[in-house]
Amino acid sequence: MEMDCRVCCNGNTDLRINILPSASPKTGLVLFFYLSMKKIVLAFSGGLDTSFCVPYLKETYGADVYTAFVDTVGLDEHVRVTIEERAMALGAKSHISIDATQEMYDQHIAYIIKGNVLRGGVYPLCVGVERVVQARKVLEFAREIGADAVAHGSTGAGNDQVRFDGTMRILADNITVLTPIRELGLSREASTIFLRERGFPVSDARKDYSINQGLWGTTIGGKETHDSRLPLPDEAYPDTVAPALAPEQPEEVSILFKHGLPYALNGQSLDPISLIRSLNEIGAKHGVGRDMHVGDTILGIKGRVGFEAPAALMLIKSHQELEKLVLTKWQRFQKDHLADFYGMLLHEGQYYDPVMRDIEAFMDSSQEIVQGVVRVRLFKGHFSVLGAESDYSMFNTHVATYGESNSLWDSRDAEGFTKIYTVPAMLAHRAKAIGDQANRHDS
Amino acid sequence: MEMDCRVCCNGNTDLRINILPSASPKTGLVLFFYLSMKKIVLAFSGGLDTSFCVPYLKETYGADVYTAFVDTVGLDEHVRVTIEERAMALGAKSHISIDATQEMYDQHIAYIIKGNVLRGGVYPLCVGVERVVQARKVLEFAREIGADAVAHGSTGAGNDQVRFDGTMRILADNITVLTPIRELGLSREASTIFLRERGFPVSDARKDYSINQGLWGTTIGGKETHDSRLPLPDEAYPDTVAPALAPEQPEEVSILFKHGLPYALNGQSLDPISLIRSLNEIGAKHGVGRDMHVGDTILGIKGRVGFEAPAALMLIKSHQELEKLVLTKWQRFQKDHLADFYGMLLHEGQYYDPVMRDIEAFMDSSQEIVQGVVRVRLFKGHFSVLGAESDYSMFNTHVATYGESNSLWDSRDAEGFTKIYTVPAMLAHRAKAIGDQANRHDS
Amino acid sequence: MEMDCRVCCNGNTDLRINILPSASPKTGLVLFFYLSMKKIVLAFSGGLDTSFCVPYLKETYGADVYTAFVDTVGLDEHVRVTIEERAMALGAKSHISIDATQEMYDQHIAYIIKGNVLRGGVYPLCVGVERVVQARKVLEFAREIGADAVAHGSTGAGNDQVRFDGTMRILADNITVLTPIRELGLSREASTIFLRERGFPVSDARKDYSINQGLWGTTIGGKETHDSRLPLPDEAYPDTVAPALAPEQPEEVSILFKHGLPYALNGQSLDPISLIRSLNEIGAKHGVGRDMHVGDTILGIKGRVGFEAPAALMLIKSHQELEKLVLTKWQRFQKDHLADFYGMLLHEGQYYDPVMRDIEAFMDSSQEIVQGVVRVRLFKGHFSVLGAESDYSMFNTHVATYGESNSLWDSRDAEGFTKIYTVPAMLAHRAKAIGDQANRHDS
Amino acid sequence: MEMDCRVCCNGNTDLRINILPSASPKTGLVLFFYLSMKKIVLAFSGGLDTSFCVPYLKETYGADVYTAFVDTVGLDEHVRVTIEERAMALGAKSHISIDATQEMYDQHIAYIIKGNVLRGGVYPLCVGVERVVQARKVLEFAREIGADAVAHGSTGAGNDQVRFDGTMRILADNITVLTPIRELGLSREASTIFLRERGFPVSDARKDYSINQGLWGTTIGGKETHDSRLPLPDEAYPDTVAPALAPEQPEEVSILFKHGLPYALNGQSLDPISLIRSLNEIGAKHGVGRDMHVGDTILGIKGRVGFEAPAALMLIKSHQELEKLVLTKWQRFQKDHLADFYGMLLHEGQYYDPVMRDIEAFMDSSQEIVQGVVRVRLFKGHFSVLGAESDYSMFNTHVATYGESNSLWDSRDAEGFTKIYTVPAMLAHRAKAIGDQANRHDS
Repeated sequence: MEMDCRVCCNGNTDLRINILPSASPKTGLVLFFYLSMKKIVLAFSGGLDTSFCVPYLKETYGADVYTAFVDTVGLDEHVRVTIEERAMALGAKSHISIDATQEMYDQHIAYIIKGNVLRGGVYPLCVGVERVVQARKVLEFAREIGADAVAHGSTGAGNDQVRFDGTMRILADNITVLTPIRELGLSREASTIFLRERGFPVSDARKDYSINQGLWGTTIGGKETHDSRLPLPDEAYPDTVAPALAPEQPEEVSILFKHGLPYALNGQSLDPISLIRSLNEIGAKHGVGRDMHVGDTILGIKGRVGFEAPAALMLIKSHQELEKLVLTKWQRFQKDHLADFYGMLLHEGQYYDPVMRDIEAFMDSSQEIVQGVVRVRLFKGHFSVLGAESDYSMFNTHVATYGESNSLWDSRDAEGFTKIYTVPAMLAHRAKAIGDQANRHDS
Repeated sequence: MEMDCRVCCNGNTDLRINILPSASPKTGLVLFFYLSMKKIVLAFSGGLDTSFCVPYLKETYGADVYTAFVDTVGLDEHVRVTIEERAMALGAKSHISIDATQEMYDQHIAYIIKGNVLRGGVYPLCVGVERVVQARKVLEFAREIGADAVAHGSTGAGNDQVRFDGTMRILADNITVLTPIRELGLSREASTIFLRERGFPVSDARKDYSINQGLWGTTIGGKETHDSRLPLPDEAYPDTVAPALAPEQPEEVSILFKHGLPYALNGQSLDPISLIRSLNEIGAKHGVGRDMHVGDTILGIKGRVGFEAPAALMLIKSHQELEKLVLTKWQRFQKDHLADFYGMLLHEGQYYDPVMRDIEAFMDSSQEIVQGVVRVRLFKGHFSVLGAESDYSMFNTHVATYGESNSLWDSRDAEGFTKIYTVPAMLAHRAKAIGDQANRHDS
Repeated sequence: MEMDCRVCCNGNTDLRINILPSASPKTGLVLFFYLSMKKIVLAFSGGLDTSFCVPYLKETYGADVYTAFVDTVGLDEHVRVTIEERAMALGAKSHISIDATQEMYDQHIAYIIKGNVLRGGVYPLCVGVERVVQARKVLEFAREIGADAVAHGSTGAGNDQVRFDGTMRILADNITVLTPIRELGLSREASTIFLRERGFPVSDARKDYSINQGLWGTTIGGKETHDSRLPLPDEAYPDTVAPALAPEQPEEVSILFKHGLPYALNGQSLDPISLIRSLNEIGAKHGVGRDMHVGDTILGIKGRVGFEAPAALMLIKSHQELEKLVLTKWQRFQKDHLADFYGMLLHEGQYYDPVMRDIEAFMDSSQEIVQGVVRVRLFKGHFSVLGAESDYSMFNTHVATYGESNSLWDSRDAEGFTKIYTVPAMLAHRAKAIGDQANRHDS
Repeated sequence: MEMDCRVCCNGNTDLRINILPSASPKTGLVLFFYLSMKKIVLAFSGGLDTSFCVPYLKETYGADVYTAFVDTVGLDEHVRVTIEERAMALGAKSHISIDATQEMYDQHIAYIIKGNVLRGGVYPLCVGVERVVQARKVLEFAREIGADAVAHGSTGAGNDQVRFDGTMRILADNITVLTPIRELGLSREASTIFLRERGFPVSDARKDYSINQGLWGTTIGGKETHDSRLPLPDEAYPDTVAPALAPEQPEEVSILFKHGLPYALNGQSLDPISLIRSLNEIGAKHGVGRDMHVGDTILGIKGRVGFEAPAALMLIKSHQELEKLVLTKWQRFQKDHLADFYGMLLHEGQYYDPVMRDIEAFMDSSQEIVQGVVRVRLFKGHFSVLGAESDYSMFNTHVATYGESNSLWDSRDAEGFTKIYTVPAMLAHRAKAIGDQANRHDS
């Protein structure tokens, strides 16, 4: 659709005009007027959407586009180089690759472990939190180079735009946040045409599944996940073997924890990122860690996704077992409830609500003594926690003994306890009977 | 701003065009194309915004506008007639006045009482819930007369638009929801001009405070409430006297409850709406029920409002005192937490999330035996709950006696109870000492 | 230890005397004086402890002992007959066998399913709740025959005495509750001697594991469970095969739910008890449902137990998957938290706190629409939920579509949502910066 | 009742024997054998029960009794001296007076303020927590002087024995805890006779009310509090004037907070203990801070108590108002729920469950920015919070503006927000309709 809109620009030469068909059925036409900018930092992944953004932002705002790639996975050098080459080819003024893998672990994964966060009882928030890290790092870079604006390639459809865009808005202060793909309601076809018209190659490959690989796990969307009835086929999982093809012999692994976090595997100390990778490899070999998750998206509809996350699941379940030895009933009760809420807000892109810092303080306090070793057995697509041990264990026989030889109380104590322990329910039972009788007499 | 837009209408004669300056700084121009409609039901209060809507909807959509006023307060006949006359004068096709006062009590106020809902510990949700009732009743009427659309006069600024608009969207099914004031981002000045241009009178009166009087209480906004520092002056409260001017003699009132709800005052049975009114009068005389509330609006910013709600506060505090006699510790614990959440969602216009029905089921179950009498004393701007009594009381001497003559347990039972009751903390204390020692040896 | 205590009886011929060494280190001697009784109803299982109680109660209280066996499993006739014969041989006045299997399902298991109750994330409360049913039924019978007292054979060591004794005390009204084993602090050796002295045979068999088989699962205690480090060996599990010996071919099962409860398997309608049994058989064949649980006992120490509960785990996980389709986020959030608390109190023998009825009302309300089919695949010791489907699904494409073609909102809506959704965190971020700056200036 | 029990002592000359009528109706006689001890530290208050303990412990255990008085109120020197003189007169080996007032504030009252802890919505835990401090300090002293045992004078009737005895048991490690009054089930009459027989004077004064004055408030028990119906008469309150006699002129006070704690009154910096005392005086003058509390005792029955706590109530309500400006919705939501639980466990003597440390970490994290000034007006038995102000306020106009001139979003944003915000309830509404229809067709 073309129209001459100079009449309404009042000759303001700082404005640039784009005319686009609106996504809303009610509105026929929306005219956007863009202010000129000098420096825009674009969160760049090398995919179609962010590739589109490089020439589009240059053309629309007349700005220099600085691309920034935030690595939260610890990628190989050649992957980073490929991304950089793509950015420069698309016309970026400069490109930076920011390694935020350690930050991803320290500020996010560590708390997913401490909180045993499993959305819907199954999903360890494999992906999603990266967006928060990426938004934060891109903004830091933008502030450093004095950019007018930051831009990201999110559409308006899913969770990630809320996480990305929300985090940027929260932290942006005076920097403008641009969201060209969402603003334009652009389809993949339209982006492709736009890029090809300008001579930039776009691959034709259509994949059945959209795969998102992170440090903490991989999500798989497409086909079966658009329905609630069917599982993903074995071949949709990129790294783990099918359980039926897993070794006939089980394998055992011991995981050591200190202050609630893993630090060694089978007795060997490892930095957390290497530890996660090693555990993922062992799990993948045994077909461990596959599952599917149905949950509530931030935008209110239900969503479904397949995932494989062997390390995440083994670490969380092991950590949870260890906590059962060293935390009191009420610690676990309150921590479970807080962590469920924490996981919900983390999923929903609300990482920067200060309540999250308060819950982290609670979790840190509870983890001081979460220390010990947990043994796990992997076999044919599944793992079991075999047992755990801790210097701080309340199960420790030096601390308490179970059964008839108990020395903490005698039978008479147990009688007194039970008698008093059930007083409230007994009073409620009696009061109900007395009250009902009184009411019967009344009527 | 005027422009010829026929070019982009493609000759679609079903479209009508309005051109308005956009509220967004980024967008210079938005063109709305409206579909013709036949019947629009407008939620009509007689105020400036809904007055504007009558001619505006007629002109813009070429529709008949049916005004509906939903009374949730139990207003005097003459007030209703005034509203009807205004609607007809503005060109409404017909006007209906719907009495939803009883529904307001049964479906909403009753659960505020059952849940002792006080936002921020002080505010009994005086106003706000009306919007849910009004939206629901207007939609019911619209469905009855086969309307194409319903409209309401909310702006985009506050809580009420979310409650009104949200409720309508949830329940609308195939009926379109129109929100002209919000869509146009219209100022009060613009509305006034629009109406006067068409010959409709608009009062010039500017009040210092915006007062919202409902069955369950009155809110007062303006001047001091735009700041967090100052209280409202005494004269801002429309009904209650200033505490200093209240009678020198205290007055006592007894309130009877059954199934968690009040049914009699000073021994005299009253329908709940009359009971609330009587209690409001008594409270007003003694300057009881004034306070100010700072809270979180649905749209995320903080808001402050003054209110007077003598009946609401006395009923909730009395009900709460009665519950202390008849509910167990855990009933009150869980009910308090659920009711806090219930109050939050009610405030936020989420009445139709099915979790609200589940919480109501919990509350109803807990209220079966909440029966008895509570006495309250009013004096100089304050009331105290003097005491309570119930056939179902666990405080009843037939049920349990307190003190040395206790027959439910003896000293030896208490010893056993205390011994076992403190086992977890003792084990935690011991395990900590053992663990710390082991760690000291390690290093 | 023998002594002549007639001096202190004051010639009261209604008193009978027993002298026993006390379990308390501080107390050297406790003298119990027992009142004569006419009718005592004994909860009788046929085990050593309750066998001891029959002659002991007769001798101590001079009473007729009526034994009652409450079946919560649906045992074979011959098992019940064996128990009856044992009771009569021990001198019971009469014996009754009460079938409470359906009641066990309706009042307890049904809510464990509705609440997805898994203690510590793993344990479906296989056993324990039986005690509540048994205590209740024994008391009902005692009231029916006008007994003076009820008795049970619990020791003072574990959870079951609190459940059994507590429930009886809550409901007993005027009936005395006797707990001979706990009162005497009796060892198994002492009971054996007591019975053999009176000519009653006692088996010498010592088993490595104490196995407790119920309708809802089986628990296994002993050896490895006294420590936290080791798993149970494969041979300790009575019914499920070892995962390594499970069939090489997976098996799929479909489970149909209505109002939150299962009613059909692979399309075939079954009463719930038969359904649980069938599912247990299928699971046992595939080695599914084994695990170990570390938890907090009612008496405050940590405990560990192995269990196998294929049906329980498959039903709970399937039910949970179905709920993900039909319940809102907040329904699941609140229900999960309430059910965690419900499971805790159920585990702790607090079934009769009225808060449990209130939570059941919440759960029942939420389950109205939990209807549909879930498919599960069993393979080599593990099962996966493959997918689910429901008429009430919010995932249903008639209700909402996911992805780019979404019709519930457009990109501009998403922008507005994200903007407002992150307002609180943004304000907190800004206020923190402003506040910090002001404080810096101050100092 | 007298009997010769040498026969059962087996000549153990380390044992001492006491014969006492048992409190249990079932048991006629209990014989306690006491081990000799060298040093016993007695928590000594100077009241009847602890006075009894001095000679009783000496006689029964043949030990030296070291009395320790823990001051948690900041008493006048002469009160401490009187207590010391009493202890020495009763035969104490030595007496120590330990000032724990600051510790009482730092470790306990500070968290009651931070958590806005009000049991039952009214009661600021005026007394009770002292027991924890006292038990801890007495044990510290006992460990210092190498005592064999600590003793306290609690009966088995109330909360304080659980707090006192429980805390001692948790922390005691190898020190024995003695509870003579509870163990003997001793009446006040029996203690009086025991002391008078030994020539120690005991006052005959019987007071209508038992008054417990602490730093944080005063509780009043007796007469009316044994019933739930009546208020205490004005004369039962020791310090506050009757509201009717309060000055006709209101008084205003400003309270300054930093990190969630008060540090200045009317602009004048004060240490917290002086601040509480000043505020109590101001409140007392205006009859502010009286109320009655019905709650659940640790032992399961309901209890009622009157109290006056002007400073506690004004500090908590002021602190709460300040938090409304600086904390987000979710911070207040989670903090309120945690603090309610914290208050419950604190009341119940579970201060040493480590979950309390975790919750304190949460609270400390949340209080970092709780800073500002709150103004309060006192008048005729009541106070109102007038307003609050903070550098960290989210209400601050530099941070956000309310109303039509809002710059954080526009009308179109609000539309998008509302649309997406109500998606879940709308989907639930639709799915319900579709599901119901499908089910209707089925049947």
